[in-house]
Amino acid sequence: MKPIIGITMGDAAGIGSEIAAKALSNDNVYEICRPLMIGDKGAIEDGIRIAKKSLDVNPIDYVSDSKFEYGTIDLIDMDNIDMDKLEYGTVGKMTGKASGEYIKKAIDLAMDGKIDAIVTNPIHKESFKLGGYGEKYAGHTEMLADLTDTKDYTMMLSHGDFRVVHVSTHVSLRDACDAVKKDRVLDTIKIAYQGCKDLGVEDPKIAVAALNPHASDGGLFGNEEEKEIIPAIKEARKLGYDVEGPVPADTVFSKARGGWYDIVVTMYHDQGHIPMKLSGFVYNKEKEKWNSVSGVNSTLGLPIIRTSVDHGTAFGKAGKGTATAESLLDAIDVAVKFAKNRKK
Amino acid sequence: MKPIIGITMGDAAGIGSEIAAKALSNDNVYEICRPLMIGDKGAIEDGIRIAKKSLDVNPIDYVSDSKFEYGTIDLIDMDNIDMDKLEYGTVGKMTGKASGEYIKKAIDLAMDGKIDAIVTNPIHKESFKLGGYGEKYAGHTEMLADLTDTKDYTMMLSHGDFRVVHVSTHVSLRDACDAVKKDRVLDTIKIAYQGCKDLGVEDPKIAVAALNPHASDGGLFGNEEEKEIIPAIKEARKLGYDVEGPVPADTVFSKARGGWYDIVVTMYHDQGHIPMKLSGFVYNKEKEKWNSVSGVNSTLGLPIIRTSVDHGTAFGKAGKGTATAESLLDAIDVAVKFAKNRKK
Repeated sequence: MKPIIGITMGDAAGIGSEIAAKALSNDNVYEICRPLMIGDKGAIEDGIRIAKKSLDVNPIDYVSDSKFEYGTIDLIDMDNIDMDKLEYGTVGKMTGKASGEYIKKAIDLAMDGKIDAIVTNPIHKESFKLGGYGEKYAGHTEMLADLTDTKDYTMMLSHGDFRVVHVSTHVSLRDACDAVKKDRVLDTIKIAYQGCKDLGVEDPKIAVAALNPHASDGGLFGNEEEKEIIPAIKEARKLGYDVEGPVPADTVFSKARGGWYDIVVTMYHDQGHIPMKLSGFVYNKEKEKWNSVSGVNSTLGLPIIRTSVDHGTAFGKAGKGTATAESLLDAIDVAVKFAKNRKK
Repeated sequence: MKPIIGITMGDAAGIGSEIAAKALSNDNVYEICRPLMIGDKGAIEDGIRIAKKSLDVNPIDYVSDSKFEYGTIDLIDMDNIDMDKLEYGTVGKMTGKASGEYIKKAIDLAMDGKIDAIVTNPIHKESFKLGGYGEKYAGHTEMLADLTDTKDYTMMLSHGDFRVVHVSTHVSLRDACDAVKKDRVLDTIKIAYQGCKDLGVEDPKIAVAALNPHASDGGLFGNEEEKEIIPAIKEARKLGYDVEGPVPADTVFSKARGGWYDIVVTMYHDQGHIPMKLSGFVYNKEKEKWNSVSGVNSTLGLPIIRTSVDHGTAFGKAGKGTATAESLLDAIDVAVKFAKNRKK
């Protein structure tokens, strides 16, 4: 059976409903999975209008009531947006609270085995906070980790077969230097391996990026390579992992994108994000718009499968019909791959 | 008159002579400039053989004896390679010493106004050291700075209209964090502006990248944005520069490559090198070779014009005829642009 992919609508004031309508107007999505939206009926209908698509909505309470037919969006209708009050591109309590409710519902369904994976549309941090989640959660990932009782999880970014995981993410660059420790690097190598295996890569070839320029040029610029990264790589090799490194960060990504490696273990947030976004985001100067905004953010280490678009709510273009669904389509695609391999 | 571009041969055991022969077999090079090699006759002739080109060599002592005709490589012949002893892909004293002599000669010619710009082919660090330069110079740039009495100079990387300069380069990432100081950031903004002007960009639009992820998210991850970078940007704006920032590093390069900015001021080596090399270096998995190795390294702040290829001696492929001249052609092109604007 094709996997059931639960797609949260994200913040109703953003582009989530529009790109969902655009994504689900592709019949090949229905060829690879059974998609199910989790959102609000009024908002989804408005997304269909904004996207200029002709699709029906099948509002349901239970997954078992889904039709899974191309042309109709099956929707777990949380009925939590008052369309008279919705303003696109605006921070608000109603939309923030609702965006958290979609995530909560999606997690419940995934934990119960009613859906095979979650794909999330962007939420807005400030609205999410106003909605009452700010105290507990910085965003999606923390909420997912908490509600699934997960301690160790890691973000993987991917654009096609070009993938990165991070040793650290949302810390200052100075703290990121401190976070480069043998054990954490080794753990991240293991996570990278498992992430690739879960996506169906047979013998994952892993690169470990250096922290310092020129991989410190034999100790001339910093010693983290010698003290922490090389010992972690040696240990990983002993355990049987196919690992190369530390590879200077200014060449490792060209090689990885060209297929030399299946995944790159990066040492800090921007080291992984710069190449990934440069690869997926293409700006068109003449048209003053993004030609392409692709790339997927997956959370590894959870008991459930979760992928996400790699962009924000794009309040600036919400409600205008100009958003592209590429990243959402990519995220559905990656979720399907994870789901298929997990079922094996 | 077309500018005279002096091209050093680089390390004779590398790919310099081969890519020089390949570059100078393009007649459009002769349409934009008057190219002049500085190297060794035997080595250049071997480069022509390896490149499978039919070109003559005109060995001369003085620039005024050049023919500047397509089909003939004008060569200031330093006569310093014994071809019986040359082994491609090998570190050696003879080749290292010779590689420094080409640079010295090129600087003399440029300082005397006999040539309008220098384009350098790669040298090999270890050979350069064996050749007797190691004590004084880490590489090209230090030698250029010393022999032209230059204190303040900065590397600019470019790939087409996508350009970066760095606040720091060859230091550890921890030291790079310490180097992010208001004065240095402001100086680098000024250098970035002048570099663009020197290339003929009318009103340079400059982006300043953040040091920390998400530009520190309002101080959550680090304070260098607030303490050093923002004050530098404010000061630069007061002085009339068109500057944006701090822009999160994971989006600034997609925007710059798309034409949003003319140049990006980056905070550390890999922050500038990762996007630039990812943009210029394209690896082909099927053929197990690089499809494209382009990009130019220019030294700003010298009294003379100097650009360089953005790759190394490639000892692994030296003598085999498989090297590509793209980066050298790019470097010639950028040198010509600098020379034309300087002459105005």
